[in-house]
Amino acid sequence: MTNSFDFTAHVNDRLSDAIAKERESIGFYDLCDQDITPFLVLAQKVKQTNIVIVGIGGSALGASAVYRFLDLVRSFDKKLHILDTTDPLVLESKLNSFDMDDAFYCLISKSGGTIETIAVAKYIDTAVNLHKENTVVITDDASILEKFADSRGIQHFAIPENVGGRFSVLSSAGLIPLALVGVDIKLLLAGAQKVRDGFFNDQGYCHSLMLKATYYAQHANTYNINCLFSYSEVFREFNAWYVQLWGESLGKKQRNSELHVGLTPIGLIGPTDQHSFLQLIVDGKRDKSVTVIKIKEFENEMRIPDNSFENLEAMDIINGFSFAELINMQADSMMEALDSLDDIPLDIIEIESVNASEIGQLILYYELLTALVANMLDINAYDQPGVEMGKVILKEKLKGK
Amino acid sequence: MTNSFDFTAHVNDRLSDAIAKERESIGFYDLCDQDITPFLVLAQKVKQTNIVIVGIGGSALGASAVYRFLDLVRSFDKKLHILDTTDPLVLESKLNSFDMDDAFYCLISKSGGTIETIAVAKYIDTAVNLHKENTVVITDDASILEKFADSRGIQHFAIPENVGGRFSVLSSAGLIPLALVGVDIKLLLAGAQKVRDGFFNDQGYCHSLMLKATYYAQHANTYNINCLFSYSEVFREFNAWYVQLWGESLGKKQRNSELHVGLTPIGLIGPTDQHSFLQLIVDGKRDKSVTVIKIKEFENEMRIPDNSFENLEAMDIINGFSFAELINMQADSMMEALDSLDDIPLDIIEIESVNASEIGQLILYYELLTALVANMLDINAYDQPGVEMGKVILKEKLKGK
Repeated sequence: MTNSFDFTAHVNDRLSDAIAKERESIGFYDLCDQDITPFLVLAQKVKQTNIVIVGIGGSALGASAVYRFLDLVRSFDKKLHILDTTDPLVLESKLNSFDMDDAFYCLISKSGGTIETIAVAKYIDTAVNLHKENTVVITDDASILEKFADSRGIQHFAIPENVGGRFSVLSSAGLIPLALVGVDIKLLLAGAQKVRDGFFNDQGYCHSLMLKATYYAQHANTYNINCLFSYSEVFREFNAWYVQLWGESLGKKQRNSELHVGLTPIGLIGPTDQHSFLQLIVDGKRDKSVTVIKIKEFENEMRIPDNSFENLEAMDIINGFSFAELINMQADSMMEALDSLDDIPLDIIEIESVNASEIGQLILYYELLTALVANMLDINAYDQPGVEMGKVILKEKLKGK
Repeated sequence: MTNSFDFTAHVNDRLSDAIAKERESIGFYDLCDQDITPFLVLAQKVKQTNIVIVGIGGSALGASAVYRFLDLVRSFDKKLHILDTTDPLVLESKLNSFDMDDAFYCLISKSGGTIETIAVAKYIDTAVNLHKENTVVITDDASILEKFADSRGIQHFAIPENVGGRFSVLSSAGLIPLALVGVDIKLLLAGAQKVRDGFFNDQGYCHSLMLKATYYAQHANTYNINCLFSYSEVFREFNAWYVQLWGESLGKKQRNSELHVGLTPIGLIGPTDQHSFLQLIVDGKRDKSVTVIKIKEFENEMRIPDNSFENLEAMDIINGFSFAELINMQADSMMEALDSLDDIPLDIIEIESVNASEIGQLILYYELLTALVANMLDINAYDQPGVEMGKVILKEKLKGK
């Protein structure tokens, strides 16, 4: 992947020192160096056709982003199903969509006590019985969920203590379900490593990322909405992962001032959302930056045939183009239109092709960018105090039955 | 459906006069009075199992919203497929997911010359040949697409001239594919009529909607982001429809000042997005209003079993609840948490149950609200001048091949 942009900012030199120091205690930076052998050993043993994630938020979005990115191109033999809700309508529909006896269940919860996850696990347990041959547990070391796993002899893996849920896609939480379904997790980590090493070892790469982060942070009050306009459906779940990462990490009270700050992420898919959200970007309030993601090589030959429709000859200008050429021309045209407006910060990320290395690069790129912006805004990217109150109220309601 | 909120505003009496006047020329207000017999006659004749929309933006989002809302509960015999992209990866995957010879194609384009729609239609035509037995065309009267239909003897229906794409779900554009798949479109329109008549005939109902619109418009600079937090997956495509309606209608230059204004729509699904976006709402910048949508009666009996997990006994508080009870308690808990913050405008829409009348009500409710806010902001809700420049650039690129 490459990233280019034409806005600029003055980078504070202390930023790279701050990140270097943060790296000593925050785990996501160095997940690409971990030993993945145990995950690959498990993947060798699992014979079930359906891999089922029972998990929500950070325990589901990362694996979903990688799987969805690759699946349309690679067509894995095994299917990944994600149960990340308490909505009975969709739960029932999803549970009816695969053979529950030919499924391997990944119970994933960092705290171990996520209500949605345990509720669904209990439901599955009465249907098929969760045991060591059809279940793995991925959770914090010594959590109550780990103890439950021990009580049934179910294998469990730890999520590193210093890796938060939304930064956990390259830990056991994301890598195990992805390995089970057949994703090349070694290549995924190699991609992440490339970006990590580029950032810490290459002055130019490092400066470029810091500059982008600085621009976003310095203009947080003007451009408080950051649109990611991804030109392919393969990015739909990646967009959702980005929304969680960006929103939950950057929506905070400032450490010193207690001021509410926050950058609002929007995930868009092109060209479909040119017919939905684009008008608002072009003519609406100037509160949005736009990042376009394009795929250089779709490796797909579908072509618009060279046939003329009677009375629609005016449309023959599209004849003979491949759909890949057309979608990329649409991305370029939209970018040129936005670029001509001058007051919309715009940049482009180009992905070489649809493979595990590229999505690994993109993941680490956004994790680094998030960490950098959080540093600039003087907020803690790694907690989520705002969601606790609702959980407390819910527990009171449940007990008051 | 019902809507309640506790914020207030001073409603300008001229607003209802302005809407009454607008109703004379803008078509969406009175679509519930149209004669749907021709659509039902067509639905009687079509025997194919797969109904395929070839259309994008307003030509796809409305039918998709209604179908997805009802499908998880009603399980229609016919399946709706939507081809609303030029992405070759997803096009190929979708076209492989149904029998193209057992499909009926709805080519929908208001202008008749939508590049994405014609590109996909040409591709399908070389595969199965579009003819009067497997195709219907829905477009503006006398468009080039209508003329193409005539050249092949394909039946065509007009989208009323004064009904814009994103307001067209209750016109031929949405009703025909929905009728073909088996949706009770009479009930859908009856729901819409209930809200329309409530607004124009019931002083209380009318005042309440105008008050909400007035609040949004008067606080457009503070609360420039409007989150729709829908507590069920059945609203996923409705959220997407809302995003287009709100964003494309309200992102405009003001008529007199030429100032850029615009309210940014965000679609969220609960409880899943409690684990993603909620932190940003609670602790982030105070630039967001929140509307919660809840379903009162899920008509689903899935229940969390009364079994205790060893070492997870602390979680037994959820035992015995139905998932429907749990998801609604989650919605209530989140609302109580937000409500306690005082500086986040909050309201709730309650849907009785999952049926065509309720989604019809919700659609007209949001169309009216959009029209009202646009009036208050002094913008034209019904054009989209901002997307033209990209189209012109694309046409130049295509011709320059």
